[in-house]
Amino acid sequence: MPSYSAPTRDYKFLLHEVLNLSQYESLPGFSEASPDVVDAILEEGAKIAENVLAPLNRIGDEQGCTRSDDGSVKTPDGFKDAYQQFAEGGWMGLSHDPEYGGQGLPHTLGLAVGEMTSAANMAFAMYPGLTGGATQALLAGGSEEQKNTYLPKMITGEWTGTMNLTEPHCGTDLGLLRTKAVPNGDGSYAITGQKIWISSGEHDLSGNIIHLVLARIEGAPDGVKGISLFVVPKYILDDDGNPGERNTLQCGGLEEKMGIHGNATCVMNYDGAKGWLVGEENKGLKVMFVMMNEARLGVGLQGLAVAEVAYQNSLAFAKDRLQGRALTGPKNPNGPADPIIVHPDVRRMLMDQKSFIEAARCFVSWTALQGDLEHKSDDAATRERAGDYMALLTPIVKAYLTDKGFLSVSNGLQVFGGSGYVEEWGMSQFLRDARITLIYEGTNGIQALDLVGRKLAMNGMRPISTFFAEIDALVAEGGPDAVKPYLEALAATKAQLKEGTDWLVENGLKNFDHAGAASHDYLQLFGLTCLTLMWTLMAKTAAPKAGEAFYDNKLATGRYFLDRWVPEGPMHLAKMKAGADSMMALDAEAM
Amino acid sequence: MPSYSAPTRDYKFLLHEVLNLSQYESLPGFSEASPDVVDAILEEGAKIAENVLAPLNRIGDEQGCTRSDDGSVKTPDGFKDAYQQFAEGGWMGLSHDPEYGGQGLPHTLGLAVGEMTSAANMAFAMYPGLTGGATQALLAGGSEEQKNTYLPKMITGEWTGTMNLTEPHCGTDLGLLRTKAVPNGDGSYAITGQKIWISSGEHDLSGNIIHLVLARIEGAPDGVKGISLFVVPKYILDDDGNPGERNTLQCGGLEEKMGIHGNATCVMNYDGAKGWLVGEENKGLKVMFVMMNEARLGVGLQGLAVAEVAYQNSLAFAKDRLQGRALTGPKNPNGPADPIIVHPDVRRMLMDQKSFIEAARCFVSWTALQGDLEHKSDDAATRERAGDYMALLTPIVKAYLTDKGFLSVSNGLQVFGGSGYVEEWGMSQFLRDARITLIYEGTNGIQALDLVGRKLAMNGMRPISTFFAEIDALVAEGGPDAVKPYLEALAATKAQLKEGTDWLVENGLKNFDHAGAASHDYLQLFGLTCLTLMWTLMAKTAAPKAGEAFYDNKLATGRYFLDRWVPEGPMHLAKMKAGADSMMALDAEAM
Repeated sequence: MPSYSAPTRDYKFLLHEVLNLSQYESLPGFSEASPDVVDAILEEGAKIAENVLAPLNRIGDEQGCTRSDDGSVKTPDGFKDAYQQFAEGGWMGLSHDPEYGGQGLPHTLGLAVGEMTSAANMAFAMYPGLTGGATQALLAGGSEEQKNTYLPKMITGEWTGTMNLTEPHCGTDLGLLRTKAVPNGDGSYAITGQKIWISSGEHDLSGNIIHLVLARIEGAPDGVKGISLFVVPKYILDDDGNPGERNTLQCGGLEEKMGIHGNATCVMNYDGAKGWLVGEENKGLKVMFVMMNEARLGVGLQGLAVAEVAYQNSLAFAKDRLQGRALTGPKNPNGPADPIIVHPDVRRMLMDQKSFIEAARCFVSWTALQGDLEHKSDDAATRERAGDYMALLTPIVKAYLTDKGFLSVSNGLQVFGGSGYVEEWGMSQFLRDARITLIYEGTNGIQALDLVGRKLAMNGMRPISTFFAEIDALVAEGGPDAVKPYLEALAATKAQLKEGTDWLVENGLKNFDHAGAASHDYLQLFGLTCLTLMWTLMAKTAAPKAGEAFYDNKLATGRYFLDRWVPEGPMHLAKMKAGADSMMALDAEAM
Repeated sequence: MPSYSAPTRDYKFLLHEVLNLSQYESLPGFSEASPDVVDAILEEGAKIAENVLAPLNRIGDEQGCTRSDDGSVKTPDGFKDAYQQFAEGGWMGLSHDPEYGGQGLPHTLGLAVGEMTSAANMAFAMYPGLTGGATQALLAGGSEEQKNTYLPKMITGEWTGTMNLTEPHCGTDLGLLRTKAVPNGDGSYAITGQKIWISSGEHDLSGNIIHLVLARIEGAPDGVKGISLFVVPKYILDDDGNPGERNTLQCGGLEEKMGIHGNATCVMNYDGAKGWLVGEENKGLKVMFVMMNEARLGVGLQGLAVAEVAYQNSLAFAKDRLQGRALTGPKNPNGPADPIIVHPDVRRMLMDQKSFIEAARCFVSWTALQGDLEHKSDDAATRERAGDYMALLTPIVKAYLTDKGFLSVSNGLQVFGGSGYVEEWGMSQFLRDARITLIYEGTNGIQALDLVGRKLAMNGMRPISTFFAEIDALVAEGGPDAVKPYLEALAATKAQLKEGTDWLVENGLKNFDHAGAASHDYLQLFGLTCLTLMWTLMAKTAAPKAGEAFYDNKLATGRYFLDRWVPEGPMHLAKMKAGADSMMALDAEAM
C-alpha cells in the first residue's frame, strides 16, 4: 500500500524564501496570506491529503465508479464522506473570490494544496478541480445574476461543476461541434447533443452538478465563430435557488479507462436540456479558454503531483529492499544484502525524479504567482509582465511537466522491479493515472503548437524577449561560487533556446510545417531552460544558508540536474533544426 | 478493436536482402531455409498471428486468468483452442533440435515468427515462449534421458514449461535464494519453497507443465555457488513416460498485474515436490543463464513487437481521424477537416515509431543470426565473432528495444488523443503490456551493468574491438550518395561510443560507481549506434533499388532516423561523463 507525505517543507522554502510572497502583502489576497497563515494552510492541507484522501486512492482505482440503469453514478466507497470533509473544510474556496464566499487567497497557495490533493488521490481531486474550472468560467463570463446564483454554492462545494467540450467527432477541433441550442422563448435554451469524456459528469458527491456546455445556437455560423457557452444544471433551480426539477440530461455511460478510475468520465446526453447563455452569443470559446488556461496549469501540477508520490514510494522501496552488494563494497555488512539505494543506477532513477520534481514545483509556483500578479498587482508594468509570462509559460507547464512527470513515474515504477508491475504495490496506478495528463486539456502536441504558433509571437514577441532579458540580467549579476555552475548552465541553455527561437522565426514563417515539426522539441528545450532557471533561483536562495542540511541537499540535488538534465538541450536544438523535410517526406499511404 | 497485419514484406527484405540468409545454405538448418520455405513460413506465421491470436488479445486482457480454490488456473476464452492450433501447426518446434522433433530452422526465422505472435497477443505468446526457454535449458544442461523424456513433448507443445527463479526476498540477487532440495535417496529430490512471478506457472493449455526450478541442495554453499537446477513436472511421469501422479506443487495465487493479463503469473508453492537435478550440483545458474541470454533476445523482441502493433493502429487512426486543417492549407477540402496525419507533430510521433521499429527489427534479426552462426557455422573464426557479438549485444537488444519500445507505444497511444486512454481502443493494453519488458529477465538496469561490468571487458575487450573495427571498415568502404549521410552518422555515433568506452575504461576501474553511474547512458548510446549501423546496412541494400516504392520509403524513413534519433548520441555521452559524484552525493536519508 503506497504512502504519501506532503512536501510541506519544500513549499515553505518556495513560498517564503524563493518567491518571498510577503513582499506582495499590500495586494488583495496576499495581505491575508501572512507567513503564519500560509504555513497553517500547508499543514492542514497536508493533513487532509495524507489522512483523508491518500487512503482512498487504491480503493478508488480498484472499485472505480459504477453507473446504474437510471443514469446515476456511484463513486468509490469513502469518496462521498471525504468530499464532504473536503468541502466543509473550505478547501474548494481557498483562492476564489471573497465576494462569492471564497477566501481569496493567492492561487499560488491554492496550487500548493492542489499538488497535495492530486498526489494523494488524483481521481478524487478532479471533482473539486473541475468545479474550480467551472467556477472560473462563470466568473469570467457569467452575468451578475448567474454568478450570484451558482458561485456561492460551488465555492462551498455544495454543488460541483463540469466542462463539456468534446463530442465523438470533435476534440481538438471544436469548430466541428454539433450540439444544438434552440431558444425556448423565455430566455433559456433547449440544449441537445452528445458530449463525451466529461470528467465528474455525474456522481453522488454533491446536491447539484452545474454543467458548462459548448453548443451552437440555431442559425449560428459554422466553425469556431458560432459556438456559445451555456450553463446547464443537473437540477433546474426553483424560485428559491434550490435544486428543483430534474433537467433532461443524463449520463449515458462511463468510459473504461486506463487510470483515474475513481473519477467518473461520462458520456453526457443532452435531450432538450434547459440551459442559459453565459456571456455573449457565439463567444463561448473565449470564456472557455480563460478557464482552460488556468486548467492547464492544474494539469501540469498533476504531472508533478503524481511524480512526487511515485518518487516517495520508490525512495522508500529503495531504502528497504535488500538485493546485491554495493559496487564499492558492502554497505550493510550485517544484513543478507545491501539496500538497493546503494546501486548507482537505482540512484540515477531516484535523482532523475527528485531533481525534476523540485524544479517543477518551483516552476508551477513561479508561474502561478505570475497569474496572481496579473490580476492583483497595483502596478501596470507588473501586470503586463505577469500576463505575458502566464500566457507564454502555461503551455510549457502543462506539456513539459506532464511529459517528464510520466517518465518520472515510470522511473519510480522501475525502481520496484517486478513489484512495480503488480497492482497491490500501487506504482502501476500512478503510471496509469499519470498517462492522461499528456492528453487532456489539449494534448501536449497542441500545447507545443500553441507555444510556437501563438504565444511566441504575442505582442511582437514581447513575452519571450522579457524572458531572455531577465535571464541575461540574472547571469550578468553573477553570484557566489556555489551558484556559478547554475548560472553557466542557465546561460548555455538560454543560448540554445535563443538559437532555436531564431531558427523558428527564420524558418517557421517560410514553411509552417517547419514550425509544426520543431514545436515539440522547442517546447522541451523551453521547459529545460525554465527548470534550469528555477534551479538557479533556488540555488541563489539556498547558497547563503549552506551548512544547514536542507539547503546543502537542495544545492546537491540541483548539481545533479546540471549534470544529467542540462545535456538534453543541444539534442532538442539539433532535432528541431532538422526541420520538416524528412518528417513529411513519406506519402501517408507509404507509412 | 485494434487490428494487426504482420510485417511479412519487411522480413523478406531483412532475411533475403539485408542478411542474405541463403549465403549460409551449407549450414545445418539453413539448408532447409530456402527462400521459398522462408517466405512460406513467414506467410503462414502471419496468418496464425493475424487470424487466430490477434482476435484473442483484447479478451485476454479483459478476462485475465482465473484460479480456482484447488489451485487450477483457467486461461481466457479461446486461448485453449488457439494453443492447440498453434501447437498442431508445429510452431513450437520451428527452430528446435530435429533430434527431438524440432524443425531445426534458424532462430533468426523463429524470431521473425516470434515478433508476429508477440505483436498479435503478447500474453498468449508467453506460454510457448517460456516453453521454448525451458526447452533450451534442458537442451543445454539435461542428461540424455531427461532430454528424451521431456523435449519431444515440449517441442510438439503437448507439454509446456516454465522457469522458476524469483522468490519473495530475491529477484536480481539470486544468491539469497532459499528454496530447498533434499535428496530422496532414489535419485530424485524433494523441493520445498515458494517461487513468485512464475509466468505460465499453471494453466489449462497443456497436458503437463515442466517446471525448471532453482533450489539449494541441503548443505550446499551459501550464495550463488550453491544453487542447482531441477526439473519438476506438474504430473510425475509414469513408467511409460505419461503424466501420472500429481506432484506436490501448486499455484498458490495469481498476481494482479498492470498488463499481460492473459498470461498466468503465479505464486508457486513447492511442498516436497519431486524433482530431478539438471546438470551438475551447484551449477544451476550456469544452465539458467544459457537460456536467459536467449530469453533476453526474446524480451527485446517483445518490445519491438508491441511497438509494431501500436504503430499500425496509431497510423490507421491518424489516417482516419478528421480534425483541424493542415498548416499549409486543406488537404481534404471536401471533408469537414483533414486527417490528423497531415499535422507535423502527429507525423513526428508516427515517424519516431516507424524509424525505430524498422531498425529494431533489423537489429534483432542481425543479432539472432549471430546466435545461429555461433552454434552452426563451420568456421571457427565466424563462430568466435558471432559468439562475441551475441554476448555483447544481447543486453542492448533487451534493454534498448524495450526502453524505446515502451516510449514508442506511448507515442502511438498519444496519436489517439483521448481515445488512447479508453480501454476499448486497445492502446492502453499495448502500453500496459509493454511496461513489463523493461523489468523481467533482468531489469534494464541489470542489462546495463551486465554490458559495462562483464560484456565490455570479455576476452580482453575483443567483442567491442571487433565491433568498432567492422564499423570503421564499413565507413571506409564508402557508398553511393544515398548512403553517404548514413555513413557519416554512423561514423559520428561510433566516435561518441568510442569516447564513452574510453571514458569507462579510464574511470570505471578507478571507481566502480562511475561505471554504474554511466551504465544506463552508455547502453543507450550503444543502442543508438547499433540502430544507426542497421539503418546503414538497410540503406546500402536499398540504395541500388531506388525508384521502387518499397526501397524509396525505406531510405526516406532512415533519413528521418538520422535527423531525429542520431542527435541523442552526444547527450548520452555528456550524461555518462558527468560521472557518479552528483549522483551519489546525497545521503540516503537526505533524499
